[in-house]
Parts: sequence; C-alpha cells; structure tokens
Amino acid sequence: MNTVTATRPLRIQLDERDNVAIVANSGGLPAGTVFDDGLALVDAVPQGHKVALVDIPKGGEVIRYGEVIGLAVKELPRGSWISEFLVDLPAPPALDSLPLATRPAPDLPPLDGYTFQGYRNADGSVGTRNILAISTSVQCVAGVVDHVVRIVKDRLLPNYPNVDDVVGLEHIYGCGVAINAPAAIVPIRTVQNLTLNPNFGGEILVIGLGCEKLQPDRLLAGRPAAEVSRDILSLQDERFVGFQAMVDGILEMAEERLKRLNARRRETCPASDLVVGVQCGGSDAFSGVTANPAVGFATDLIVRAGGTVMFSEVTEVRDAVHLMTPRAVNADVGRAILREMAWYDRYLAEGETDRSANPSPGNKKGGLANVVEKALGSIAKSGRSPISAVLAPGEKATTKGLIFAATPASDFVCGTLQLASGMTLQVFTTGRGTPYGLAAAPVIKVATRSNLAARWHDLMDLDAGRIATGEATVEEVGWELFRLILDVASGEKKPWSDRWGLHNSLALFNPAPVT
Amino acid sequence: MNTVTATRPLRIQLDERDNVAIVANSGGLPAGTVFDDGLALVDAVPQGHKVALVDIPKGGEVIRYGEVIGLAVKELPRGSWISEFLVDLPAPPALDSLPLATRPAPDLPPLDGYTFQGYRNADGSVGTRNILAISTSVQCVAGVVDHVVRIVKDRLLPNYPNVDDVVGLEHIYGCGVAINAPAAIVPIRTVQNLTLNPNFGGEILVIGLGCEKLQPDRLLAGRPAAEVSRDILSLQDERFVGFQAMVDGILEMAEERLKRLNARRRETCPASDLVVGVQCGGSDAFSGVTANPAVGFATDLIVRAGGTVMFSEVTEVRDAVHLMTPRAVNADVGRAILREMAWYDRYLAEGETDRSANPSPGNKKGGLANVVEKALGSIAKSGRSPISAVLAPGEKATTKGLIFAATPASDFVCGTLQLASGMTLQVFTTGRGTPYGLAAAPVIKVATRSNLAARWHDLMDLDAGRIATGEATVEEVGWELFRLILDVASGEKKPWSDRWGLHNSLALFNPAPVT
Repeated sequence: MNTVTATRPLRIQLDERDNVAIVANSGGLPAGTVFDDGLALVDAVPQGHKVALVDIPKGGEVIRYGEVIGLAVKELPRGSWISEFLVDLPAPPALDSLPLATRPAPDLPPLDGYTFQGYRNADGSVGTRNILAISTSVQCVAGVVDHVVRIVKDRLLPNYPNVDDVVGLEHIYGCGVAINAPAAIVPIRTVQNLTLNPNFGGEILVIGLGCEKLQPDRLLAGRPAAEVSRDILSLQDERFVGFQAMVDGILEMAEERLKRLNARRRETCPASDLVVGVQCGGSDAFSGVTANPAVGFATDLIVRAGGTVMFSEVTEVRDAVHLMTPRAVNADVGRAILREMAWYDRYLAEGETDRSANPSPGNKKGGLANVVEKALGSIAKSGRSPISAVLAPGEKATTKGLIFAATPASDFVCGTLQLASGMTLQVFTTGRGTPYGLAAAPVIKVATRSNLAARWHDLMDLDAGRIATGEATVEEVGWELFRLILDVASGEKKPWSDRWGLHNSLALFNPAPVT
Repeated sequence: MNTVTATRPLRIQLDERDNVAIVANSGGLPAGTVFDDGLALVDAVPQGHKVALVDIPKGGEVIRYGEVIGLAVKELPRGSWISEFLVDLPAPPALDSLPLATRPAPDLPPLDGYTFQGYRNADGSVGTRNILAISTSVQCVAGVVDHVVRIVKDRLLPNYPNVDDVVGLEHIYGCGVAINAPAAIVPIRTVQNLTLNPNFGGEILVIGLGCEKLQPDRLLAGRPAAEVSRDILSLQDERFVGFQAMVDGILEMAEERLKRLNARRRETCPASDLVVGVQCGGSDAFSGVTANPAVGFATDLIVRAGGTVMFSEVTEVRDAVHLMTPRAVNADVGRAILREMAWYDRYLAEGETDRSANPSPGNKKGGLANVVEKALGSIAKSGRSPISAVLAPGEKATTKGLIFAATPASDFVCGTLQLASGMTLQVFTTGRGTPYGLAAAPVIKVATRSNLAARWHDLMDLDAGRIATGEATVEEVGWELFRLILDVASGEKKPWSDRWGLHNSLALFNPAPVT
C-alpha cells in the first residue's frame, strides 16, 4: 500500500471555491497528462504541488482551502504548475486592523443522537478514562512518586479493576524558578489545572516536599481548607520517620481514592460531553490535504453535536490569524485571539528569534508555497465552526464549542497544556510519524499517508492517506474518525499508544526564568 | 538525636579571622550565658544567630567565613547579639571593578596516596559507574525508549552482571523549540555532552525520530561519519515496519553495547580522577554552618589530591562574586566568572525578575543577616582552593581543580548540567530534606542537622549536624565525607537514593523560547 500507486492521474481540491488543486500521484505527473474531467497539465507538476484549475490572470487571487494564499505574479493558465515562485506572499497579517467576528456562521446544523460511554464527574464534566492521578508540586518528589506508582500498579491496581491506570503527574517546575515573574502564571496554572482533568474523576492527591516555592496548597487554590489538608502529603512532614513511612502514607491516600474511583461506572453521555484536543506533529505535504481536513470535518461534527474541540499551536497558525479572527463568535473572542498572538510575538522577539524558518525547505519541496498555505493546512483541523472561546496557555475551558487553546506547537508541550485545559481525548495527525502518546488521555493518531499507515501499522490508528488516493473522501474519513473518537472515548477501543503503553512525559510551558 | 540537646552553651566559628560566631543550641541562649572560654552573652541570642566575639566599633567590619559580611551600624560590644538590623549591607558587587586573581594561593599542600576503584575510559576519564545510556534527540521518542529500557532491565541486564544499569536520557527538548535562537546553544550542548558522561563508558546509542529540529547526528558533532551512523537509530527509518521492529532494532544495538560494557572492570585510580559536583537544596540556617563547610573541606581535599570539583548555582553565589573573582587562578578565569554572572543578570531582567527575594524570611529567622551571608554559606562548599576554570551551562570540563560550573540553583537543572559537564558523583547538602537522586551518577546526601539525619535515616547518607552539637569538627566530617566519596566512587557503598532507586528526571536548562 503506497501513497499512490495508481497510474490514473489524481488531484485534490479542498474547497469548492479553490482555483488550484494538488497533484496526489507519487512522483508527480508529466506535462500533457489529462485528468478524467479533461483538465490537461501544461507543465509537469510534482506530487503535492498545485495546478491551476482555471486561467488565473496576473495579480489574480490564488485560492486554496477557500482562502487567498497569494497573488499570481504572472498570468497562470489552466493546467499550469503553480510553484512557490509564482505566488506573491500576501502582506503578513498585522494584529491591529483585523476583522473581528465578521464571518456569518457557516451552515452547520445541530447533530443529534450520538453518544459515548463516559465517566460523569460531580462537576458535570465527563472523563473518557478513570485514572488515579498523583499530582506533584515540585520535581524533587518525582523519585518517590515513581516508586509509589510502581507499587500501586503492581500491588493495588489489580484489586480495583474499574480503575484504568495510576499516573504520576511529574514535571520539572516547582522550585528553582522565578515564581514571581509575570510569566510564571503559565506553569503555575498549568499544574493547578492538570490536577482537575476530568479523566481523574475529581479525586485529588498532591505530593509536595515542604520547602518548595510552589507550595502544594497553591495547587488547590480556592478549595475549602479541610479538602486541601486532606488531599496533600508533604514528604518533609515530621510524622514521617524514614522513607517507608512516606511510601506507606502515600499508599494509604492512594488506596482511599482507588476505592472511590473503583465504584464508578461508565454511563451513556451525549457527544456534547466530549472535550477533544486536536494537534499535528511531524507534518508533511499531505497533512493539510488529507489528515487535517478530515480532522476538521470531525471537529465540525463534534461542535455540531454540542461538544468541545480545542485547536492550538500558535506559531503554526499565526500567519493565518486573519482567517481566524473573522470566525470569532464575537469581537471579544476576536480580541482574545489577537492578545495571544501578540503575547507570542513578544515572547519570540525577547528570545531574539521569530517564525522565519517557516515553511522549511522540506515543506516547500512538498508543495507549500508560503507560510499562509502552511498555516491553512494546520488550521484545517479546526474545521469551519465559529471560534467560541480562547484560552491562554494552561487555562481551563469553561465553555463548549470550538476553542482556540493558545499553546506552543511543540507536541508534548501542547499535549500537556490541552490536558490542563480539560481535554479528555486527543487527535494527533502526522505525516512523518511519531509514537507520541499521553498517559492521562487517549491519543488517536491519524496518518496523512497510506504508506506511513501501512509501515507503522501498529502505531497509527487511522489512515487518512486514502483521501489522497481517491479511496475515500474527506467527509468519509471525517465520519470514520468521529465514530472512532466515540469508541475510544467509551473505552471500547484503545489507541495503539495505550496498547503499547507509549506515553510522553508532561512538558510544562514555562516562559519565565529558571533561577 | 536532636540538633542540640546539650545544655552546655555551644557556638560555631567558621574561620579563625571571624569576629562573630553562631549560637548552636536549639532554642538559643539567654543573656548572661557564659561559654567555657569565658565569653558572656550581653543579649539573648537565638539559635543560628551571630554573637560578637570581640568589641566591634561603629562602622567596623563584621567578619564571617573570614569575609566581610557588612559594617556595624553602631558599636557592638563583645557578647552582643548581631541581628540583621545591626549590619549594613555592603554595596552590591558591581561586575566592572572586581579584583581578578588577586588572592595568593592558600596553603593547601598536595595530598597523595588516595585512590578509588573506577572504570577507566579510552579517553582517560574515569567513571564511578558502568551504565548503558540511551540518549534521545527529542522527547517524541521517550515512550519507545521507556519501553525498551524496561525490556533491557528485565531481560538483558541480568546477563551482563558487570553493567550497573541502563538509563534513558530523556528530556523535553529537541523539537518545538527556537533552535536558532542565541540561547539555544545551552540545551543543545547539554544534550550533546550528557551523552559523553564518563559513567557511560564511551558507549553511545542515540535514538532519534527523524524529522526533529535537533537532528540526532548533531548530538555526535565532530565524530567520524562512520561512528555517527553506527550509533544512531531513527524511528522513522523506513526499514522499521511496525513497532516491534523498532524495539528489536534498539535492543540489538543495546546488547552490542552491553557486551562491551560488561567486559569492563574497575581498576585502581588515583583520587585525581574524581569529578565531583557539589550542590545544596532545601537549605536551612545550618547549611552554611555544618554541611557546606564540611563539603568545602572535602572539596579542598579532592583538589589537593589533583581531582576535580564543580560548584554551581549562579543565583545563590551572585552576591558573593567579589569573593570569587580574587580566587580565580588568573584574570581570564576571573573575567569568565563575571561573564556568567552578567549573562544571568540579563536573563533574569528579561524575565522581569531578579534575586530580590533572597534571603527569604525563613533564612532571616534562621540568622542570615543578608544576601552576602547567604551566598557565603553556599560558597562554603567550594572550600578555599583557587578557582581554576569556569564552565558556561552544559559545557564539558577539560581541566582539573576547582571549577565554577555556572548553572541555575534549581536542584534538578543543576544536576543535569553538572552531568553534562562530566560530573561522575555528586554531593548534595540539605537542611529541610529532599529525596533527590540521579540515575546517571551516585548522589551522596549530607544532612545539615542531626534531627533530619535521624528522621530520614534511610535517605540521608551523612550527618553533618554533629558539627553543630560539637560532636565533630568541620575537618572531621570533611575527612569522613572524602572517604565516603572514595567508597561510593568505588561502588563499595551505595547512597540511599540508589538503594531505593529514587532518581529525578533530567531537566534541561533552555533559556531560549519554545515554539
């Protein structure tokens, strides 16, 4: 199963408004090739590159994803290859004059009747897993928590068959950090909100050291004092004489929580209780053609069903921000998008860097003309739904619908922040391939190419490459993914990362100094 | 065993030049107390606080650790309590006018005849452990490496009894980072140099993904191409069909290296082959009185024996930099100290923070008058030897003697950077207590107080609190520590963290942006 073995010429048009399409055949197509509908190639066109579907006049708009990706530098006749050199880069979107909430809501009717089997929590949220999380206030305690987690897995967990797993929420924050620096709010709220992920069933157990800068009770800010003292164990507490006493103390608190978690049962929940994060990593030229549009279709299905989808990756959507702000449900949400972009522009500038390396030579070789086209490919994961809310990094979602969770594009950092924002299942698209997984939430990995899906047959959960070969449409794969999300959320199917136990560690985003 | 149960009045003078001493008795001492030598207290003095040993005139120097910690705000008669309010803070040391390499070398004669049983490497370095390290270029591969490490531990390691352990060098760097930002040099060289730690026996195995920004061959920069391709496995390599093939591929490379490592034997090495890192964390008022001075004495012993000691923690020594630059062996080394301090000043300023929270209210309550006194307590770990070299964060040591390895004070970040700099054994002092440990090198933990040593009897390796109670001198505990270092380096003794398997994860210092 290769990406495209057919000799029949194949092209992919992503939006009915597009005046260009992408050649799907591996190896590209020679000049003179005639498609079934009569379109004849004027030039040879490499795989993943664009062909003009109509005559585009000099200065005319080149439209892909239904959006203007640039202007033709000369007349581009129907059937000609539109290389990166033939498209003028649009002016970069300035943040001070963008249209806010101007786009009429797309025709996306409500979708009823879809459900999954979830764990409903006291606060109304629904988990897709029933996990005992052991939170940590500081990395100093990680060795002890690791030790305890091993014991819980070996000795306690078998007695509590309804509990899926025990996870140590370890991180490298908590001390030796500039905890009063303005940007420290990001890692602090991330640690706070990770503890509250719906997959942990409202059970809280925080292991602290005692002298750390991030005092453990700060993780439970706003809770009644009795709960706070009940849910925290500090290793420096003088009642612990010797290591075994600490371990026993944690095990006792763990077992109390395991008992309560074990009493829980899955129940039928509407799809509106889904909180799905979408992300891409190890992208290739097909990410924006196959997997991401299929994810975008599934995103719209979830939003139509009343559920929540988070999309993220600030640096990968920054250059298409002018396409995001019009989709905001109101001007406040539009301004929140701009606030996050501006914050990140400054953050990069302070580090004496920018996003200039985008697209990479590999991206261009793959057919991406410029950063707008690349960003459109990334944004495709967000579908067409209105953007209903914006979260600063690590903030907890409080509304439903399509949410822009402003995180770095780094896979593991984005994953960690989406977990803090309340994500209970992630969809991850990849073209190059990555064994990425999370311990705290299932991750469905979608391959952009069929040959990756075939080669990594026991790591990839869905093959969106069939879109490139014409074996399936974006809509078909989108529906397939939607149903897979419901099955995985129900615990009926396990993604490969969970079957193998492949889980990346948490990676906090700390834009403040280390001391 | 409490810190001080004796009713006999006890005080601690750290240097013969000091005109103040510290009251050691828990609960402090009342006015009128007469010490054995006739010194009578004019005031009540709390535990850990200073008493004047001679009449100090108004404006006179208050000397502790043999250094001026401030000027008397009024006449301070012999026997009076010198509270924080009675000492004027010296002007903060500006970095542009400090004396460089002005202090004559102290009288520290060579120390011969001390040896340990180490693993000598082809490059002449000596490891204290014989560990198979599996390096990673990016966090994406961490789940797979974890999986393989478990298999190696369960199935392969028992067949190679001379190999101490297998360690995955996992970190959260490698992709989603501003790899061309100026400060990216820090995490990049850290990852590069970690691979070369002497405890890994020169055996290199790098697991990469394939599309990451930090390409795996960059970890082996400067090596012959044949070695590079032999020592790297990328998961995206097309020869791997399915997850099991990746695992098998890594296991095959691991076993080759285990065979070679298993053939190694410890041999008698002079103490000059030691590369010891010193650090403190969870400090209290006794850190600078008991444990750190004892460590400083051991530091001098190692340096006298021709060995290497690294001290670190920029933010905790910054305010005593004027005491460091005179100790530099030459002006270049002095300027290198200033370079690192200036870099850190800027780094903190860019994060809109500074070191102003030092000393903390707890420090002051414990008797520390100001930041100079606190920094002197930290610097005490470096003994009196000349500073022979300075390392920027993550740089590899190429010289022997006392080295200032400029790292953040964060325990886990400092530990990771010292490992990258070639440290093969760490000494860690703590007053509040931490279960800190490293997988890649043994860590000897020294308690500053006997009651901590008693309570954490199976986590603390040495009790320096006996200095406060008068049961032992700094010199005696220093010699004890030196001999313990030799025993642990020889594998004859295991610190508690290794006996329990308590190990903190690596924590890279990345001052550049995440993207």
